[in-house]
Amino acid sequence: MTSYSAVDSAFIAALRAIAGDRVLTSPAVREQHGRDESYHPAHAPDAVVRVASTEEVAAVLRLCSRHRIPVVPYGAGTSLEGHISAVHGGVCIDLSAMDQVLQIRAPDLDASVQPGVSREALNRQLRDTGLFFPIDPGANATLGGMAATRASGTNAVRYGTMRENVLALTVVLASGSVIRTGTRARKSSSGYDLTRLFVGSEGTLGVITELTVRLYGVPETLSAAVVPFADVPGAVQAVIEVMQLGIPVSRIEFLDELMMEAINRYSKRDFPRRPTLFLEFGGMPAAVAEQVAAVRGICAAHGGADFQWASNEAERARLWEARHKAAYAAMALRPGARNWTTDVCVPISRLAECIAGAREDAAQAPFPTVVAGHVGDGNFHLPMLVDGGDPAEVAAAQRLNDQVVRRALAMDGTCTGEHGIGLGKMEFLLAEHGSEAVGVMRAIKQALDPLGIMNPGKIFA
Amino acid sequence: MTSYSAVDSAFIAALRAIAGDRVLTSPAVREQHGRDESYHPAHAPDAVVRVASTEEVAAVLRLCSRHRIPVVPYGAGTSLEGHISAVHGGVCIDLSAMDQVLQIRAPDLDASVQPGVSREALNRQLRDTGLFFPIDPGANATLGGMAATRASGTNAVRYGTMRENVLALTVVLASGSVIRTGTRARKSSSGYDLTRLFVGSEGTLGVITELTVRLYGVPETLSAAVVPFADVPGAVQAVIEVMQLGIPVSRIEFLDELMMEAINRYSKRDFPRRPTLFLEFGGMPAAVAEQVAAVRGICAAHGGADFQWASNEAERARLWEARHKAAYAAMALRPGARNWTTDVCVPISRLAECIAGAREDAAQAPFPTVVAGHVGDGNFHLPMLVDGGDPAEVAAAQRLNDQVVRRALAMDGTCTGEHGIGLGKMEFLLAEHGSEAVGVMRAIKQALDPLGIMNPGKIFA
Repeated sequence: MTSYSAVDSAFIAALRAIAGDRVLTSPAVREQHGRDESYHPAHAPDAVVRVASTEEVAAVLRLCSRHRIPVVPYGAGTSLEGHISAVHGGVCIDLSAMDQVLQIRAPDLDASVQPGVSREALNRQLRDTGLFFPIDPGANATLGGMAATRASGTNAVRYGTMRENVLALTVVLASGSVIRTGTRARKSSSGYDLTRLFVGSEGTLGVITELTVRLYGVPETLSAAVVPFADVPGAVQAVIEVMQLGIPVSRIEFLDELMMEAINRYSKRDFPRRPTLFLEFGGMPAAVAEQVAAVRGICAAHGGADFQWASNEAERARLWEARHKAAYAAMALRPGARNWTTDVCVPISRLAECIAGAREDAAQAPFPTVVAGHVGDGNFHLPMLVDGGDPAEVAAAQRLNDQVVRRALAMDGTCTGEHGIGLGKMEFLLAEHGSEAVGVMRAIKQALDPLGIMNPGKIFA
Repeated sequence: MTSYSAVDSAFIAALRAIAGDRVLTSPAVREQHGRDESYHPAHAPDAVVRVASTEEVAAVLRLCSRHRIPVVPYGAGTSLEGHISAVHGGVCIDLSAMDQVLQIRAPDLDASVQPGVSREALNRQLRDTGLFFPIDPGANATLGGMAATRASGTNAVRYGTMRENVLALTVVLASGSVIRTGTRARKSSSGYDLTRLFVGSEGTLGVITELTVRLYGVPETLSAAVVPFADVPGAVQAVIEVMQLGIPVSRIEFLDELMMEAINRYSKRDFPRRPTLFLEFGGMPAAVAEQVAAVRGICAAHGGADFQWASNEAERARLWEARHKAAYAAMALRPGARNWTTDVCVPISRLAECIAGAREDAAQAPFPTVVAGHVGDGNFHLPMLVDGGDPAEVAAAQRLNDQVVRRALAMDGTCTGEHGIGLGKMEFLLAEHGSEAVGVMRAIKQALDPLGIMNPGKIFA
């Protein structure tokens, strides 16, 4: 067991020598920085540094290395597995003020950004270029945080996840040394893929202080629709067939009937209270028409006939905003409850069975649950709206989560499609990869962070 | 400097206890296993083991670890940077007999294969499923070797490289322990991305003994064309515009006039001796028609008007076979010469300038050169047909290669788009990533292979 030093006033003074009055120690600020959007209990860091540059992060890390003080990188605080909880105390490195889009290179379809840029902010700045950045978790997360958790969202079925869309990173290592991984070349066989190693490392190997990401042209034609189905298996089977036929839909999202009710209430919509697909088609006009016709045929064969089209950009935006806020809509079903959400992802042929099993298990639970997911990837969420003060509910949530994950692993799926391991899935990491593979991960961690100061207590117990 | 033990008769006997008469020590077999298709001098291993299973590989690695004997994994011997040259002697693990397609899961669009399966063999087995595996380096390489070098080819512009298309790996580590990286889920945030770490690790971290790869439906409509251009800048500029507009072409390959002449001779074709694009369009029928119209317009604006269409599957196959054999065609331009090929990849906006600069440099060379490349990715090759016995030519090739690489790095490109570092690009690895990032790679190597037995002398000096 690694032991850390305590943050004392001399250490705070040393931090202040680096970052002046951007070192914050008030209880309110510390509390806020120890709490994400998950069910995990908050742990406040001992100090928060609102860093302004890569050099400053390097100076903080050199200091923390010297004193063996834990470091927790922080973006928007929207993580869902306790990633930013300072379970061993230490320093929270708040990167949200490093929020500049550094360069947009439209001819190369890429952009370099600081880690505190949010996905919405980046897309606002891209508006006049005809380009966009597709990765869209529900929350308006920062790009740095999204890289750290290997985030995805509704566009992943067409554009991939952060794994496929980060070209290069600047990373400050535990020692304070600064590296750049990758170049702006679209592909490379030049040595070990450090970019992909840091993407998804959850702050346990270094602090991301700059990202170069891929951009895409906004398709010439975009068309979105909502399609209610008679039942859940019909909706899921329609998705499976669309994917198996390789129809290049831009988005294909499933929401069950209670999720639709929650969205209706939260986002003031009046969708049918039925299992539903949200769809988007993008491309050149004839290609879109062809995709629409093919998907319509498949949906009709599975009890989804009544397409409601979002006919202009404003309606499309409103539609996807409702989808992005699904987690908040679900939480509003039971005010005060904590959102404990499952996040499994399975091979597409097993998806219907996996969702059906999860819903069956969930029917026994003493709390409401909904199902929503990026089903084109085989990924779905089952948010459990748990009364955190009721040990019986917490135990039931733990059991249900366990059942859902074990079923997905038995299907050669993963315990987390996009939320990460954090505090919540460490035992499943082991179940998924086995102790030898996790041993390799630990060996890498040990090699890059021998003092164990980088976001300790996450990914590995 | 790591020192290794010598392979003696007692060690050979121990190898034979594992693999019987599949341990080969004849000079001819050893010579053949130390030579790839590159300009690098061959180094024969001391013994070759034609392994039959993951367990056997594990037993060989345990033995080699115990005796500190170098291990060089071998697939088809088609690498282009000396990857399989046994520069420190030791044991060549020949995986070519592990050539079974283990499972094709058409509904999930994936397949599990042994590492000795070649890309052509996999596609032959897929023929009746309506699916295909897209990654296609020029040579008929093995899937294991392609993963190890992070290979790509003509389809990468649409389907990505081995980086994007390997879902899971079975890897035997230096210690002999066996891990599985990844699952069959399409995306995951479950821990460090070990799959991407081993893809591109060139046999220096472990031996790949099984791969699960993504498959794709053969597009409903496929259409291929050859388009000669008035000049090189016109052809390259057309590619840049196609990419910037996001037209989802399946393949877009550039070949200069001498490359076309070489192909005409080698593959008995009569293409115009002009800078040329080879194009392929795939998808649903209206989408393909739309892509073709858009690309025709762009090409015409840049002096490429005379589209020659491959009208059926046989003609298409013949067209792409000619392209895949381009390296062999180039070598036939100067019988007896060695093929030393550059492999840079740059951001697309810099591609025209990068190719023009390379051709200008090459005009001074005392040997013939051609240009051919996967230009949609920003990647091109300049094979130099060098008389290896002439020190002046070798020095000139070294200089030219250096110029081409330095220019690409200055454009924020990479020294190798798809061939790997091997023996030939170690100094450029350092120039591209910097000593701190290469230090991270070395730390990972040290953590996973502390004795340094895995393909020593590659990637790192």
